[in-house]
Amino acid sequence: MAEEKANTVSASEIILAADTTVVIENEILGKPLDETDAKRMLATLSGNRHEVLTGICIMWDGKTLALEAASTAVWFDPMTPQEIADYVSTGEPMDKAGAYAIQGIASRWISRIDGSYTNVVGLPVALVHRLISAL
Amino acid sequence: MAEEKANTVSASEIILAADTTVVIENEILGKPLDETDAKRMLATLSGNRHEVLTGICIMWDGKTLALEAASTAVWFDPMTPQEIADYVSTGEPMDKAGAYAIQGIASRWISRIDGSYTNVVGLPVALVHRLISAL
Repeated sequence: MAEEKANTVSASEIILAADTTVVIENEILGKPLDETDAKRMLATLSGNRHEVLTGICIMWDGKTLALEAASTAVWFDPMTPQEIADYVSTGEPMDKAGAYAIQGIASRWISRIDGSYTNVVGLPVALVHRLISAL
Repeated sequence: MAEEKANTVSASEIILAADTTVVIENEILGKPLDETDAKRMLATLSGNRHEVLTGICIMWDGKTLALEAASTAVWFDPMTPQEIADYVSTGEPMDKAGAYAIQGIASRWISRIDGSYTNVVGLPVALVHRLISAL
């Protein structure tokens, strides 16, 4: 997906593309379709561990220079149905994979992660820094 | 320390005090004394794992209602002496325990954490949310 994104751009500049998905029990959670879908996703995440995967693709002049992925485990505290409804009504979940933003209001339910934090936000900064330093 | 901080305030309001320290190989790293001290701390953290501990104290009307601590493991990628010097010259490390801000420029060297991210920033938000919800 990150490589496809990078390929849609035609330029002699360096291109960095990233695509983040949320995976729980073999289901991939993308961006929610509507508020009902967002509530369903959050109910699935509530009280459970899930994985956040980001694919990174760096291209230059049509050539793929680096293609890597970062994975982070995220633990959600249990959310009540009222908390889920209130959170969805803020609008924050609607354009986010998995229907939450760790850097936003959802931080109050995330007691632990194992892996890169910036990966969960959407771009694994340390991985990108390492890849670019190596090029 | 968090309880001492809370005790310095005299009020009938609810008081939340937090104190964050960085621990590596049984050494506690507070805020750096000067740029030389900041460079020494970063050289110690470079390429190694350390722990960030935050003590939380919630008081009301002189009574301690909650006293807890959060712990997060943090892995620093190796930093070159030039990267350390450049980072210290930005000024970011000077008022931070352990001489770095995970939410700032230092994010590029932090490839992994295990625990609460907001604890490393300085206030473990999910823990505070849980304590306040329980009160």
